[in-house]
Amino acid sequence: MAERRVYLDYNATAPLLPEARQAALAALDLVGNPSSVHAEGRAARRIIETARADVAALVGGSPENVVFTSGATEASTTLLTPDWRLGRAPLRLSHLYVCTADHPCLLSGGRFPAERITPIGVDSNGLLRLDELKAALQAHDAAEGLPLVAVHLANNESGVIQPAGEIAEVVKAAGGVLVLDAVQAAGRISLDLTDGCGDFLILSAHKIGGPKGVGAFVGRSNLMMPNPLVAGGGQEKGFRAGTENLPGIAGFGAAAKRARSALDHVGSLRSLRDRIVGSVLRLAPDAEIFGRSVDRIANTVFFAVPGVKAETAQIAFDLAGISLSAGSACSSGKVGPSHVLKAMGVTQPEGGLRVSIGEGTSEEDIARFEAVLEQIVSRRNKTQQAA
Amino acid sequence: MAERRVYLDYNATAPLLPEARQAALAALDLVGNPSSVHAEGRAARRIIETARADVAALVGGSPENVVFTSGATEASTTLLTPDWRLGRAPLRLSHLYVCTADHPCLLSGGRFPAERITPIGVDSNGLLRLDELKAALQAHDAAEGLPLVAVHLANNESGVIQPAGEIAEVVKAAGGVLVLDAVQAAGRISLDLTDGCGDFLILSAHKIGGPKGVGAFVGRSNLMMPNPLVAGGGQEKGFRAGTENLPGIAGFGAAAKRARSALDHVGSLRSLRDRIVGSVLRLAPDAEIFGRSVDRIANTVFFAVPGVKAETAQIAFDLAGISLSAGSACSSGKVGPSHVLKAMGVTQPEGGLRVSIGEGTSEEDIARFEAVLEQIVSRRNKTQQAA
Repeated sequence: MAERRVYLDYNATAPLLPEARQAALAALDLVGNPSSVHAEGRAARRIIETARADVAALVGGSPENVVFTSGATEASTTLLTPDWRLGRAPLRLSHLYVCTADHPCLLSGGRFPAERITPIGVDSNGLLRLDELKAALQAHDAAEGLPLVAVHLANNESGVIQPAGEIAEVVKAAGGVLVLDAVQAAGRISLDLTDGCGDFLILSAHKIGGPKGVGAFVGRSNLMMPNPLVAGGGQEKGFRAGTENLPGIAGFGAAAKRARSALDHVGSLRSLRDRIVGSVLRLAPDAEIFGRSVDRIANTVFFAVPGVKAETAQIAFDLAGISLSAGSACSSGKVGPSHVLKAMGVTQPEGGLRVSIGEGTSEEDIARFEAVLEQIVSRRNKTQQAA
Repeated sequence: MAERRVYLDYNATAPLLPEARQAALAALDLVGNPSSVHAEGRAARRIIETARADVAALVGGSPENVVFTSGATEASTTLLTPDWRLGRAPLRLSHLYVCTADHPCLLSGGRFPAERITPIGVDSNGLLRLDELKAALQAHDAAEGLPLVAVHLANNESGVIQPAGEIAEVVKAAGGVLVLDAVQAAGRISLDLTDGCGDFLILSAHKIGGPKGVGAFVGRSNLMMPNPLVAGGGQEKGFRAGTENLPGIAGFGAAAKRARSALDHVGSLRSLRDRIVGSVLRLAPDAEIFGRSVDRIANTVFFAVPGVKAETAQIAFDLAGISLSAGSACSSGKVGPSHVLKAMGVTQPEGGLRVSIGEGTSEEDIARFEAVLEQIVSRRNKTQQAA
């Protein structure tokens, strides 16, 4: 009998929330271009503005500072540019500082040329090296333009939470602009743009239970804004042209609304996560839990079992009906060594396995995971004894 | 009693087709990131590849040459760039030639600086001036790079169809690259990338009954490609990064499949259109039908009634329950003079009214339109007699 599949890959994409499904469906059925002035157009416009308020509320921001995009990657490519405007005046951000454990969409540097991007390392726990950032910003040539710093708030592979407040202080002291990738942090830790969350946050709908294909960036204000990436229409106040993804935005808004209250239930997520950590160490006492000694989001366990190749284990889990990830899913099915582990100085050659859970995850799901992990570790033990 | 509303604004956005709704909904319910290697990820991937084949088939192209985007505006910003690659070698397109009646997303020039964009005019019928294009391309400095020409295939306001085959010949003779904006042409005229449809076509899902927020560009090959606009992940073979808009793409594929067969029913659309033209001229014999003497797509009537301000008439229609457009909807509710009419040399100060229909349009809808137009014209006649 085919068993129900167990989905433990929320950091790749979360299942659609019922309220996001309903909102997206209602918007799909609504004819009307949000730019049209007739009744149908105005109804479409209202859906967008409601979603905008809900997304703003998730991050303690103002609706007028939310710019919807097709996802976090587009948001990041938009923000990571040397060409900005302060009101109507052009403003130049001359150099980009990214974190070596950032998501590829930040690491790629957006619209900055390679020679204007400086990577800042992380320590063995995956935390940004603040001293390295400080030194880099001290060496920054302010005559050429302001520094732009882009760091993830919570790591998509390890779940490690960066010290955003301290980073923000360092960047502020250097007169720089701070972009925080909050894709994995949203709905898992409290976000407040008015307090230590940098100047811009990047969000993705499908990581919080909204539809794929929509995201946003939210600024502390909209006085200083990046030159548009997608141009040719007046949508999003001219900051992002093109007919809006109405069903996506509607679903995003509903998911953002739910994500605010999800913070209240983060404790039960943490219990499940701690059970997973406990099981891994019980079944394989030599396993390594990455970032274990620092703050992590409550839904993620990133671990390695010596002698168990992560990619092989991922396939074994998949065949046993369990979806989890060897590293991240960001590069079109390509499986390769994790740049996050490399950045943390992990020399372990087998790679990491990522278990990421959400509100749909049950104790039964974890039991299924444990049973398969037990088989995998037992197989390893036999192989090692035979050798 | 509130009457059913009549939607005559298909060129702004078309109502969602039932099969597109079903496909989008199925994809919304599917957990799984198309980049994940587990079963859920592979199922998501299959949806995208099926849609890719359907979109390719609509334009006589190959699936491997379809790149999904968040819409036509992003597709256009991606293609309209000086920086291309021929295989792995960089290739420079040094100058952009656009048509003055193009959609703003082409007219804005994408990633070309303003000084490298030359507008080519249209005649009073809205047809691109081939002689002007020829002269411009003869003056093009090939030593700096190839010329890039971007023209709409069917005009979003007037419905006028450009002589794509002739344009393609002129561009080919100049060794240039031709991008055709097929957003309004798709599903209304037959498209064949192997024959006189230029080198790249731009498509938008929501204009053919798919969801808003998704589009594509399709090349004749994928040997010569624009540098990505959105970077940072390996999706779409590296030509467009970011987690794919799965429900949008699924709906787009279903709509594209339907659009192919819609071409068989274009005759009934044309009959309705001709009825509208007849009614306008019967009710207001001094009305002007723009582009009347040239080929137009079968669903669009763009007209002006002297003494009737288009924006005012649009509001009167809206209040009477009929949605149509004064010009296009592309700029966030802004209503202004039509750049298309200006390009055609129309000096008429009242602006144009656009009626654009689709397969959901009935004879009854047209009767409702006629009744309201009759009131509007009668009001005008009384005002003129009183003056």
